[in-house]
Amino acid sequence: MTNDSLASPSVSAAAADGPTPKFLRALAGERFDRPPVWFMRQAGRYLPEYRALRAQSPDFIAFCLNPEAAAEATLQPMRRFPFSAAIVFADILLLPQALGQKVWFETGEGPKLGELPPISVLESHVSTAADHLSAVGETLTRVRAALAPDRALIGFAGAPWTVLTYMLERGSSNREAARSYAWTNPAEVDALLAVLVESTALYLAMQVKAGAQALQLFESWAEGLSQTQFERLVIAPHKAIIARLRGLGVTVPIIGFPRGCGGLAKLYAQQVETQGVALDTSTPMELGREIQTLRTIQGALDPLVIRAGGPGLDAEVERLLAAWGGGPYVFNLGHGILPDTPIAHVEQVLSRVTGEI
Amino acid sequence: MTNDSLASPSVSAAAADGPTPKFLRALAGERFDRPPVWFMRQAGRYLPEYRALRAQSPDFIAFCLNPEAAAEATLQPMRRFPFSAAIVFADILLLPQALGQKVWFETGEGPKLGELPPISVLESHVSTAADHLSAVGETLTRVRAALAPDRALIGFAGAPWTVLTYMLERGSSNREAARSYAWTNPAEVDALLAVLVESTALYLAMQVKAGAQALQLFESWAEGLSQTQFERLVIAPHKAIIARLRGLGVTVPIIGFPRGCGGLAKLYAQQVETQGVALDTSTPMELGREIQTLRTIQGALDPLVIRAGGPGLDAEVERLLAAWGGGPYVFNLGHGILPDTPIAHVEQVLSRVTGEI
Repeated sequence: MTNDSLASPSVSAAAADGPTPKFLRALAGERFDRPPVWFMRQAGRYLPEYRALRAQSPDFIAFCLNPEAAAEATLQPMRRFPFSAAIVFADILLLPQALGQKVWFETGEGPKLGELPPISVLESHVSTAADHLSAVGETLTRVRAALAPDRALIGFAGAPWTVLTYMLERGSSNREAARSYAWTNPAEVDALLAVLVESTALYLAMQVKAGAQALQLFESWAEGLSQTQFERLVIAPHKAIIARLRGLGVTVPIIGFPRGCGGLAKLYAQQVETQGVALDTSTPMELGREIQTLRTIQGALDPLVIRAGGPGLDAEVERLLAAWGGGPYVFNLGHGILPDTPIAHVEQVLSRVTGEI
Repeated sequence: MTNDSLASPSVSAAAADGPTPKFLRALAGERFDRPPVWFMRQAGRYLPEYRALRAQSPDFIAFCLNPEAAAEATLQPMRRFPFSAAIVFADILLLPQALGQKVWFETGEGPKLGELPPISVLESHVSTAADHLSAVGETLTRVRAALAPDRALIGFAGAPWTVLTYMLERGSSNREAARSYAWTNPAEVDALLAVLVESTALYLAMQVKAGAQALQLFESWAEGLSQTQFERLVIAPHKAIIARLRGLGVTVPIIGFPRGCGGLAKLYAQQVETQGVALDTSTPMELGREIQTLRTIQGALDPLVIRAGGPGLDAEVERLLAAWGGGPYVFNLGHGILPDTPIAHVEQVLSRVTGEI
C-alpha cells in the first residue's frame, strides 16, 4: 500500500514472491499505525463504472458467473481507491442455485427462490456444487493476476444459517419464519445445515485453489437468535466448516461475520477459531477490544454515516481508530456500503484511514 | 403469588397496606427461587377474551383511551394466569398524538402518522400532553383497585428515540430513515428528543400518581445504532427522563428496555440508573449475569419458542432459570408475545416458572 495513492492505486501483475499484504499481516495479528482497509460491497452500485458495467448484463446471476465481468467489477474499486484487499464479486445465493434450488433476482425486489428441493436432491449436489461454480474460481484467478502483490484477494460464502434462511423463506424476508422453523423442526434444519456446511467448505476450498488468500463467512442474519439457537445455527456450522477446510489442507486466514448477534460476538470469538471477526455497527468499543485479545477484528463504521458525510463522519472514523487501532484491526464498515453513498465520502474516509490523499 | 393458582389467580380489591409484591421486591434487588413473572403484550390478541373485547371497538386509539375497556384488557391475563404484575393497556403512540401529530391504526398494517408538526407546535403541547392522556391514568386507578395487593401494576411509555422514529418515518418502517436523519440533522433531533423527554416524564409521573407502582421505558428500536448514536439517542434521553422523574418526586422503580442494542446493554446498565434492565432474546447468558451485578434483569424468552412449544420450550425456560435465577431476576419474554401463541404454551411456561399448575 505504501506506493499507492488515492488517485491511482496500483492494479498491476502479481508477483508470487512479493511482500505479504498488510491485510494478511493484520489477520496474522500484526498491529499498524494505519490499519489495512476495505469496504463490504466495495464493488457495487455506488460506483458509476459498476452501474455502467452492470447495465450490459440484465441477469444478475449470469453477471456473477461471467468471469470477465465479475473480475472487472472486483477490480473497479481497486483502481479508484487504496483498498488493501479486493473481494471477489459474487453472491451468497450462487450456492443454493448450485445445490438445485432455483434463484433469480427481480430489479428492486431482491432475490427470489424456487421451492426448496427435497433433502435427497440437495445432498446429491453437494460434491458437484463447487464445480458448478468454477466461474467464481476463474474470476479469482483473473483478479489475482491483475492485482498488485501488496493487495490481498478475499473469497467468500454465505454462512449456512443465512443461506438457509433464504432457502426456507424463498426471498427477502423478516427471517422470523426461518427462526420459527428451526424451533419446530430441529432434525430437518440439522440435515439442511449439514448439506450447507459440506458444500460451503468445498466451495471455499475451490476459491482458495483459484487464488483467494483469505476467506470471509457472511452470517448476515445472526440477529434475533437466542444463545441456544446461535450456538446451534451459527457457532456449530462455522466450526464445522473451518474444521473441514483445515482438513482439506486450506491454510488461509478466515474471517467470520456474525452480523447482528450483539453481545454473542464474544462467545463467537471464544468458540470459533477464525483469524478475524467482523463486527457490525452496534458493537461496543469495549467489546471490540475484548475480542482483539483473541482475534483480529474488522469493522464497523456505520454505512449511514458514510452516506451522511460531514464532520460527523470524521468523528466516527477517528473514534474507531482511537478505540481499536491499538490492537489487530482491519478498518471496514459494519455492513455493506449503500448504493447512494457519494464517492467523495468514501474518499473522505480513506484519506483519514490511510493518510493518502 | 403464593395463594394463586394457574386456574384462578386472584383479582380482588387492593389493600394499601398489603405485602410488597414479589415483582417490586425483585426490582429492589431481592432474589427468589421462583422469580416473579409477566409477559410483554400479555394483554393482547393471543387471548380470545381480548379479541372479543376489541371487536366491540374498531378504533384502536379510542379503545386505549376508554378506561373501562382498557382496564378490562389489562385485567384479562391476570384472571387467567398467575402473572406477578399487570401492565396498563395503552400504546406508545398515544404520546405523539397528545403532542399534536395525527396517529391512526389500519387493520393489518400497523400505525400510521400524519405529518410531523413544527417543533413550536410540539413544544406548545408538552405541558398539557399528560392531561390529554388522563384516560390512561383512570385505567391505572381502576386496575389498581381491582388487583390483589400482592400483584404489582406497571405503567409505561415509549422511549424518546423509539417514539421519534415513528414520528419521523410516520408508520411501520425500517428505522433506517430515522437513523440517517439523526446523522444529518443532529440539532433538529436534539430539539425533538427534548420535547419527548419532558412530555414522557410528565406522562409517567401522571401514571404513578394514578396508581402505577413501577414504570417501563420501551426503547423498541435500539437496534443498529452505533455506540455514538446509542449514547446520544438512547442513553442521554433515558438519563434525562429518570432525573426529571426523580426531580418530580417519583420514587417507583424503573425498568429500561433497550431492545436490540446487543452488547451495548452493558453500557446502558452502567450509565442509566434504572432499577431493572429488560433484555432481549439474543442476550448472552454471561452478559445477563454481568448486568445482574448492577441491576435486576428481566427477560428474555424467545417469543418464537413459546409459539413453537414442546420440549424445546421447556429447555429454554430451564436455561434462563439456571443462568439468571441466581441473581435478581424477573422472568419475561425478550419481546412481545405473538398473537398466534397457543394458550397451552403460556400455561406450560408459567407452570414451570411458578411451580403452580
